Amino acid sequence: MSQPKVSIIMGSQSDWATMEEATKPLEALGVAFETKVVSAHRTPDRLYQFCNDAHERGIQVIIAGAGGSAHLAGMAAAMTHLPVVAVPVSSRNLKGMDSLLSMVQMPRGVAVACQAIGGAGAYNAGLIAAQMLALGDAELTERLIDWRRSQTESVAEEVVK
Amino acid sequence: MSQPKVSIIMGSQSDWATMEEATKPLEALGVAFETKVVSAHRTPDRLYQFCNDAHERGIQVIIAGAGGSAHLAGMAAAMTHLPVVAVPVSSRNLKGMDSLLSMVQMPRGVAVACQAIGGAGAYNAGLIAAQMLALGDAELTERLIDWRRSQTESVAEEVVK
Amino acid sequence: MSQPKVSIIMGSQSDWATMEEATKPLEALGVAFETKVVSAHRTPDRLYQFCNDAHERGIQVIIAGAGGSAHLAGMAAAMTHLPVVAVPVSSRNLKGMDSLLSMVQMPRGVAVACQAIGGAGAYNAGLIAAQMLALGDAELTERLIDWRRSQTESVAEEVVK
Amino acid sequence: MSQPKVSIIMGSQSDWATMEEATKPLEALGVAFETKVVSAHRTPDRLYQFCNDAHERGIQVIIAGAGGSAHLAGMAAAMTHLPVVAVPVSSRNLKGMDSLLSMVQMPRGVAVACQAIGGAGAYNAGLIAAQMLALGDAELTERLIDWRRSQTESVAEEVVK
Amino acid sequence: MSQPKVSIIMGSQSDWATMEEATKPLEALGVAFETKVVSAHRTPDRLYQFCNDAHERGIQVIIAGAGGSAHLAGMAAAMTHLPVVAVPVSSRNLKGMDSLLSMVQMPRGVAVACQAIGGAGAYNAGLIAAQMLALGDAELTERLIDWRRSQTESVAEEVVK
Amino acid sequence: MSQPKVSIIMGSQSDWATMEEATKPLEALGVAFETKVVSAHRTPDRLYQFCNDAHERGIQVIIAGAGGSAHLAGMAAAMTHLPVVAVPVSSRNLKGMDSLLSMVQMPRGVAVACQAIGGAGAYNAGLIAAQMLALGDAELTERLIDWRRSQTESVAEEVVK
Amino acid sequence: MSQPKVSIIMGSQSDWATMEEATKPLEALGVAFETKVVSAHRTPDRLYQFCNDAHERGIQVIIAGAGGSAHLAGMAAAMTHLPVVAVPVSSRNLKGMDSLLSMVQMPRGVAVACQAIGGAGAYNAGLIAAQMLALGDAELTERLIDWRRSQTESVAEEVVK
Amino acid sequence: MSQPKVSIIMGSQSDWATMEEATKPLEALGVAFETKVVSAHRTPDRLYQFCNDAHERGIQVIIAGAGGSAHLAGMAAAMTHLPVVAVPVSSRNLKGMDSLLSMVQMPRGVAVACQAIGGAGAYNAGLIAAQMLALGDAELTERLIDWRRSQTESVAEEVVK
Repeated sequence: MSQPKVSIIMGSQSDWATMEEATKPLEALGVAFETKVVSAHRTPDRLYQFCNDAHERGIQVIIAGAGGSAHLAGMAAAMTHLPVVAVPVSSRNLKGMDSLLSMVQMPRGVAVACQAIGGAGAYNAGLIAAQMLALGDAELTERLIDWRRSQTESVAEEVVK
Repeated sequence: MSQPKVSIIMGSQSDWATMEEATKPLEALGVAFETKVVSAHRTPDRLYQFCNDAHERGIQVIIAGAGGSAHLAGMAAAMTHLPVVAVPVSSRNLKGMDSLLSMVQMPRGVAVACQAIGGAGAYNAGLIAAQMLALGDAELTERLIDWRRSQTESVAEEVVK
Repeated sequence: MSQPKVSIIMGSQSDWATMEEATKPLEALGVAFETKVVSAHRTPDRLYQFCNDAHERGIQVIIAGAGGSAHLAGMAAAMTHLPVVAVPVSSRNLKGMDSLLSMVQMPRGVAVACQAIGGAGAYNAGLIAAQMLALGDAELTERLIDWRRSQTESVAEEVVK
Repeated sequence: MSQPKVSIIMGSQSDWATMEEATKPLEALGVAFETKVVSAHRTPDRLYQFCNDAHERGIQVIIAGAGGSAHLAGMAAAMTHLPVVAVPVSSRNLKGMDSLLSMVQMPRGVAVACQAIGGAGAYNAGLIAAQMLALGDAELTERLIDWRRSQTESVAEEVVK
Repeated sequence: MSQPKVSIIMGSQSDWATMEEATKPLEALGVAFETKVVSAHRTPDRLYQFCNDAHERGIQVIIAGAGGSAHLAGMAAAMTHLPVVAVPVSSRNLKGMDSLLSMVQMPRGVAVACQAIGGAGAYNAGLIAAQMLALGDAELTERLIDWRRSQTESVAEEVVK
Repeated sequence: MSQPKVSIIMGSQSDWATMEEATKPLEALGVAFETKVVSAHRTPDRLYQFCNDAHERGIQVIIAGAGGSAHLAGMAAAMTHLPVVAVPVSSRNLKGMDSLLSMVQMPRGVAVACQAIGGAGAYNAGLIAAQMLALGDAELTERLIDWRRSQTESVAEEVVK
Repeated sequence: MSQPKVSIIMGSQSDWATMEEATKPLEALGVAFETKVVSAHRTPDRLYQFCNDAHERGIQVIIAGAGGSAHLAGMAAAMTHLPVVAVPVSSRNLKGMDSLLSMVQMPRGVAVACQAIGGAGAYNAGLIAAQMLALGDAELTERLIDWRRSQTESVAEEVVK
Repeated sequence: MSQPKVSIIMGSQSDWATMEEATKPLEALGVAFETKVVSAHRTPDRLYQFCNDAHERGIQVIIAGAGGSAHLAGMAAAMTHLPVVAVPVSSRNLKGMDSLLSMVQMPRGVAVACQAIGGAGAYNAGLIAAQMLALGDAELTERLIDWRRSQTESVAEEVVK
């Protein structure tokens, strides 16, 4: 695969089951990406390093997934000017409501692009990353428009009973 | 102001008190924008029309603010391939929890970039719209990096008692 | 079956497991209905078309079921003067609390008739649609009164241990 | 005013501040209504009596508003075959979340048409009651369609700053 | 068993799995009870009748269990001067939070004695009913004090690993 | 006033604004009571002492009001066999939802009779305490039945506009 | 094992499945501990006794786990000057939200150190107890710093797919 | 004041109104402290620097207050082995529920000592910091025990009406 433009980071290996969904629209739309475990809490230096050189490495959009006290997306947004997409991973007891509020309620001046809790949110994270990249990429825009048309066409009107 | 690249739409005139915040980072960063009242519920044809020609009119990012059963951002995202930033406006009784869940819990295949409830979220909507546009605009990237540096420098360490 | 008076629409084929419940009281009370997959997010044009000709096709009440950021019922209510009954389908993580708030917190001027989350709500959607139609149909009123009486009589007082 | 077709009942005089909103669309659309204080908890016999003769008195739709442990709408729905519209009145501490869940989570077999919490919900209760009555009333349907068109036209696109 | 002093009513046969717990402390403390299915929504006349003659039949405390829009306890409290103990039965989607708020947020002037959600709450309903009856029954008071002592003694300090 | 039968305890002097409501039905029904500040957290020995001699002092029902991590009612119930009525006092940030859950979710084997959050709950605490005492007091039962009748009669049917 | 410095108490034997996690960091860091079942509700005298002599027995930190109306940690904090770490055990219906609010919302003047709901919180309770003890123990500080370094090193950057 | 042992950091100058409460028990107990504005989001480098040299500067306990997506305490805990006390500052719309869940739901391996939302939590943060320091300081332990005794004695039993 060519030089990745999207970096998918997650707080723990166990988040991969959710975050794998983010790769699907990226692959369908031909956007190169990388995946890494970067934990705000357990590897803060790695996160610092990651944010410091992401732009230089050619990364344009960061997708960050985490659960519970989910600080990964907000801290990444604090340490880089690249857009960060946040995916609240579902948690054992509070089912991701903690992850969602930890991620979405960012203070004035540091923004993330928050998605739905869980796999649907991860999938949409990949999609909106592609939408951002398409702003400066006419071919990707074409593929995006086609992909959406085929998505719409795939929804049968008749209910299968 | 030159041709707007960001369109700030809101469900009602009363949302302006919140959505005005979105204009601040756009102005600070020199990103041209427009503002409109477009209600998913009260003016669905206007929304349809808006989404249909936004891209042709040169709009690149849509910011949509609404409260309660907040359908504006999701419907805009359903009807255009442009990235849509969602701002959950605070509501009288549930304080924007209804707006937040209406906006952020989007299904697989149609994404929005959800922000925090209220004015801080509106402000960040303007910021992340600029971050998206900066992906293909080296000068805006420079201004963004400078703006962030000055933001950081403005935070005094000493507590004023 | 004769010309349908009730149209049961749902955001996804997967909602059928819930929405099938809506057909039970309609069948028991002899009210003709149709079922369709119409997604506000994935097929917005189909929704627009559906609302545009529902009245002309003889539909009198719309039942709309969706989950998560559930915009289907509110958008249908925005685009037709027919009464719309909303069924919040349970969602994976938030168990339909997101669906409920997305549907019930409608703004002044566009109303839906919201039901309980999940299968009981779908069942009651069918029932209240029939109650609405009975307003102008003396025979249906009779059947409704009989059905309720038999429902009451079927509740045994003795607890089966 | 002519024979009322809609009866607006409320659990307490203090609910009138909210429930008054329900009269606005009814008056605008020329639907005759009555208003009464009927408390499920403090006047259960009055409620029983009310439900028993509402139909005979010519009432076709009941709008019931209450707060907290809001049992009024559900009990009315249990005791009459007429459609009952539920308005969760905002409560002092839980801001109507208690009222909403008490009203909307009805069991299979007894339905209400639940609206949003507070004044917007009360307003919409009047509107959906009129929509139900319009099913069998072509003139009311005309007035409803006109009212909606004028509502849409009254939404200015330009934001007043 | 002798003349029942406690009546355990429940909205549906399916509540028995929970409400059976209420019988355990009553049996352990030698308090006679009866069990009945009485639904506020599906059998309102039965509820009316039940409340009307409960006192005459020698019932002194009513335990009422229901789920969702749980109106049974509050309506029983509205129609009799006997103390009513409320048991919020867990519900499929909202896990009894709806049942709890429907039951506990009673308005000024009509009280219930609300217990925890589910089986522990049902068990405690039986216990507090016995505590109420013990106020005027010295022998029951003795048995209650003994039962509590044996309960305390049964809690081993050592953790079984 | 004669020997108190009901003891109203509260975690802090500041709870008196709420707990004063509990005295109203007790006074109206002629039930003698006492009031005390007893804090589970700040005066645990006083609570221990209070529970130890309440029964001997002639107290028959305890009403306990507290806010936030509201442990007063549950600890009183743990240390006496008398029935304990719990009043969740509203809290600054969570509006008594914390107080309610702290009080109502008691484990199997130690019960409280939980009331609504705030002043209505305190009022009803006084009422249900009187209902408990009426079980063994025919004159109080008469006064209770009269009081309820006059309460019902005081609810005017006509809405004051 | 030597004289325990940390005492892990829990409201019920069934909490052991969660609280066992607290022993892991203590064992890894060589901190001696004991475990006991002490129920605020079922064995209040045992709790009183426990708090009274904990300090004399050489206990320096108390870890208290409980679920639902979780009063154990707050009551322990009320009866000793030792720091108390609170672990909200997950509950059947509300998934520990009740336990969390019961434990964390302590009033001014009596503090606990609250952890996350469930096993992760129990694990962290052991960890923060060790962090407290390390304040006056240079060797434990060394082991803690080493343990954290090895924890960080164990987090692989590459995602296992 | 002598060398500070406790450092009170906060995300914004506006948090001082809440965090000032933390200084009260520290002053009452004679524990030296410092105060600083350190924002995880706006000044991540300052936070990194702060954590890096806190221990060397003689700081033994960190108190961190923040609101909304409150990442300050968790990030501080990730970057130092000192115990971190977390204070969820109340937020405009969600009243600190977002701050609380962001802070308390920490993952296995990185712990904070979370307090109540708002001023009471800040006050208790100062108290538990002193309790931690007292573990290795017999004189502070004496002052702590005295302070608690006087606190208990200051609670009058009589209610001021």
